Amino acid sequence: MAKRSYPLAKVYGLLEPGPVVLVTTARKGRANIMTMSWHTMMEFEPPLVGCVISGRNASFDTLRATKECVINIPTLELAKQVVGVGNCSGLTVDKFAKFSLTPVDASQVQAPLIAECYASLECRVADTRLVNRYNFFILEVVQAWVDTAIKHPQTLHHRGNGVFAVAGETVKLRSRMK
Amino acid sequence: MAKRSYPLAKVYGLLEPGPVVLVTTARKGRANIMTMSWHTMMEFEPPLVGCVISGRNASFDTLRATKECVINIPTLELAKQVVGVGNCSGLTVDKFAKFSLTPVDASQVQAPLIAECYASLECRVADTRLVNRYNFFILEVVQAWVDTAIKHPQTLHHRGNGVFAVAGETVKLRSRMK
Repeated sequence: MAKRSYPLAKVYGLLEPGPVVLVTTARKGRANIMTMSWHTMMEFEPPLVGCVISGRNASFDTLRATKECVINIPTLELAKQVVGVGNCSGLTVDKFAKFSLTPVDASQVQAPLIAECYASLECRVADTRLVNRYNFFILEVVQAWVDTAIKHPQTLHHRGNGVFAVAGETVKLRSRMK
Repeated sequence: MAKRSYPLAKVYGLLEPGPVVLVTTARKGRANIMTMSWHTMMEFEPPLVGCVISGRNASFDTLRATKECVINIPTLELAKQVVGVGNCSGLTVDKFAKFSLTPVDASQVQAPLIAECYASLECRVADTRLVNRYNFFILEVVQAWVDTAIKHPQTLHHRGNGVFAVAGETVKLRSRMK
């Protein structure tokens, strides 16, 4: 795995741009993956991430029961897998096998990292008070892994119905904003 | 203004990709603008948007008091304004004047639209139960305006410290996902 441990204080720069992500969960030795675009940073450090996981996903029950997951960030090469993972259910499909994705043991949670994704964030559920009303989980990132050789990751940004904008040119402006 | 009324059911496709946005508020005839990247869709229709607005922003108090704002989505041409708006305070600066942005009356809220942004979403605060703990507001979009002539908006996606990835090429995959 090309990913290395990454400072928690810099995690916001990975999720703030709004990439589609692959969320892994695991229970009783069985791992699953779902595609997610409804997430936001909520705190810099420790990094908190809020996300909506519909009760229609098998991952919802697993996350609620285990309180652990991994947020994996894919790039353009994985576009087909991103859509494929989102279009089938872990109740009937082993998504790692079906989409040729490689599970890698995480360091602090039971859910696996996905080797092919350029970044992976091990998370624990920190707050569930909006789960019943909005399916909204607040996660704390407890360990981050990033392939820092990838300077301009071509992250995918879902515009709806399978249309994605790919992260393109980079512009840098002087800013006092974090 | 080139923007036209836009179906609420399609609003998720505007914010789901994670663009940096300009949030306008107004109180006692005085309008303000802030730059925001910490937001997520929470429901398709009516569209709900969750967002973090730090108590260090003047907009925090105005939003809490008026319960109204407009989320405006800028594109690459406005990059300097996006950073400039984020680096000064509405307590001491009239940001519309300073950054040559044009306020346009909204239809349902007191806060103005920004004419130069390709999309504007009139919002009302729908839930404040996570404001005290996380500065997290849940907004309902009550009216959307989009310049639909812009087919591939070059939205800005903040990677931290003034670095933005610009939405680049578009890929379309067959998907049953909304």
